[in-house]
Amino acid sequence: MASSISVERQGAIATVALSNPGKLNALDRSMWEKLGTAMRELSADAALRCIVLRGAGDDAFAAGADIAEFASERAAGVQAAEYGALIHATMQSVAQCRHPVIALIKGACVGGGLEIAAMCDLRICSESSRFGVPIKNLGLTMGYGELQGVLAVVGRAVTLEILLEGRVFDAQEALAKRLVNRVVADPDVEGVAYAMAARIAAGAPLVARWHKQYIERLNPLPQVSPDEWNEGFACFDTEDYKTGVAAFLAKTKPQFKGR
Amino acid sequence: MASSISVERQGAIATVALSNPGKLNALDRSMWEKLGTAMRELSADAALRCIVLRGAGDDAFAAGADIAEFASERAAGVQAAEYGALIHATMQSVAQCRHPVIALIKGACVGGGLEIAAMCDLRICSESSRFGVPIKNLGLTMGYGELQGVLAVVGRAVTLEILLEGRVFDAQEALAKRLVNRVVADPDVEGVAYAMAARIAAGAPLVARWHKQYIERLNPLPQVSPDEWNEGFACFDTEDYKTGVAAFLAKTKPQFKGR
Amino acid sequence: MASSISVERQGAIATVALSNPGKLNALDRSMWEKLGTAMRELSADAALRCIVLRGAGDDAFAAGADIAEFASERAAGVQAAEYGALIHATMQSVAQCRHPVIALIKGACVGGGLEIAAMCDLRICSESSRFGVPIKNLGLTMGYGELQGVLAVVGRAVTLEILLEGRVFDAQEALAKRLVNRVVADPDVEGVAYAMAARIAAGAPLVARWHKQYIERLNPLPQVSPDEWNEGFACFDTEDYKTGVAAFLAKTKPQFKGR
Repeated sequence: MASSISVERQGAIATVALSNPGKLNALDRSMWEKLGTAMRELSADAALRCIVLRGAGDDAFAAGADIAEFASERAAGVQAAEYGALIHATMQSVAQCRHPVIALIKGACVGGGLEIAAMCDLRICSESSRFGVPIKNLGLTMGYGELQGVLAVVGRAVTLEILLEGRVFDAQEALAKRLVNRVVADPDVEGVAYAMAARIAAGAPLVARWHKQYIERLNPLPQVSPDEWNEGFACFDTEDYKTGVAAFLAKTKPQFKGR
Repeated sequence: MASSISVERQGAIATVALSNPGKLNALDRSMWEKLGTAMRELSADAALRCIVLRGAGDDAFAAGADIAEFASERAAGVQAAEYGALIHATMQSVAQCRHPVIALIKGACVGGGLEIAAMCDLRICSESSRFGVPIKNLGLTMGYGELQGVLAVVGRAVTLEILLEGRVFDAQEALAKRLVNRVVADPDVEGVAYAMAARIAAGAPLVARWHKQYIERLNPLPQVSPDEWNEGFACFDTEDYKTGVAAFLAKTKPQFKGR
Repeated sequence: MASSISVERQGAIATVALSNPGKLNALDRSMWEKLGTAMRELSADAALRCIVLRGAGDDAFAAGADIAEFASERAAGVQAAEYGALIHATMQSVAQCRHPVIALIKGACVGGGLEIAAMCDLRICSESSRFGVPIKNLGLTMGYGELQGVLAVVGRAVTLEILLEGRVFDAQEALAKRLVNRVVADPDVEGVAYAMAARIAAGAPLVARWHKQYIERLNPLPQVSPDEWNEGFACFDTEDYKTGVAAFLAKTKPQFKGR
């Protein structure tokens, strides 16, 4: 089955679903492109009042970027910067959507999936969800455009913990880390998320949009210079990156050398 | 009974009480003015060491601005900007008070009441307190001068949740959201709050004042330009604002149209 | 027994221990100097992958600056500014270390000890640890260079609570305040901390260093001007400071006069 981004509407509420069957909805290039396009189109639609962003099925919100593509799409720094610009544009399409966006999380919310969830306005997850960014095992860094959103949600100390330890953790720990707003028993999470969406949709829609703008204005995502931005792709030219991706695909333990 | 702001002193500790009987201490224009005056006078008094800010009675800290006044005081953007400047000046009189200010919270701490509490240095509440900013149901936005303080206390993600969902929540959730520093059983909350005030008053008073200044210096409330400031009152010129206030006063459910 | 800073290495993991027997590892001048030197040397060593910073023994991480030295080293503002510059340089040697630094906390983590822990990347503590900055009872302020790190970890509201109340609190409260990342049963805390260090050391080391840099770049510690910096030592010229230190050494209760 092919990967896809689906969009469904029910009244003033739209649902966007990430789908990559058999790969825990890991995002390949076409999904990053289609997600950005979908979010920009929905943002432009003034009749809309709330968006629910979720993974297809029950097993995952999303497991990050599709590592099988790394050899073809992110083999070295220059190429990876181009792929990184695509990821960043899509992250921004979520963060800058004028309507409130709820991340409805079930199962794996890992790597780029966690980053997308961090760009949403609200995060609600099922009790059996799990979270983490274990990219230190791939020899891979989170770029500035992805880091902005995670920092804005959980702050400096938790971001350091997530990235330096690279541990996968459960829903209650995600709540304690303030990575999610609410944890719900597995059978109820969709009901609670759509009740939240309905509550938002019943409010004055211009007020929701203004509140998003005002908060962004007072608390803008931090920016970096173009030079710094490009330095954020240095990992793709390291030997350790090749080692990490190869070990991941071979399901072995990488031996990093620090170069 | 008329609304009022009372000030009592016991040694180096002053108590300021918000009172609007039968209206959950909702703040009318005269209360905003008198609260600002009281806080500025107490700030100037070098003999003082701590202020406890509370609602009169057991039912509320404060329920926000008095909505009955909106038709006369905040009927459109220009007039609302003038009222907003008054609210902002009062918020700043709390935030910039040179003495430590403890919010002692019982019952409803909602809307502008929650905003005032956020401007205090410490927040302690009773187990049965409840919190929220359900202004999306009024077609009303929180202005920049109010939003600054809430963001400084709970951060971006919780502020978005509070404003977009507009849900009223209990004391334990307020603690988990870090909106309050401590939750105390109802019969004990006053004792614990005044023990805290006594502990503060026993410390070196110049040290408390310097610590407040140093923290403000390193973590200043974010500011906006005068033009942006004025754009923060756009909601008052919308049809949805009229709809929301009318529905509130009629105790009906508003049907917003997004204009 | 003399105070000391010890450094031990086991593979890619170094352990730095603060030791001042009988004084809960309170840092005297020579310890501030040696800690800074040790951290700068370890940071320069590219073969290293993780540092565990701890107190010697089971009774304390560190109890802050050694108050017995205050009469000779910090008797007035000008001299205290020089001592403060030393403290700041050491704090920065921890914060700017290019390797991940884990604070392994047992027992007292108070005053300057808490500040050092805040400069680390991760904080793990035993269940019986205790925390606080009761310097309001000494007539002493936290300088800008120390405050930066505490604010970066726990934010404005918790920093105000810690400094204004000056209360000593337990490990579970430290976790709720997000001052520590993890609380572990006393017998297990060393095992868990070194398992964390091993997990970090198994990741790509350049990735860990880049992540630290990227987060610092997006979330830099706030800075102040040299004039403001010097104003941060005003407390040392007050009568209350002399009163506070004398009362501490005499184990009596200080009576502050606000001058």
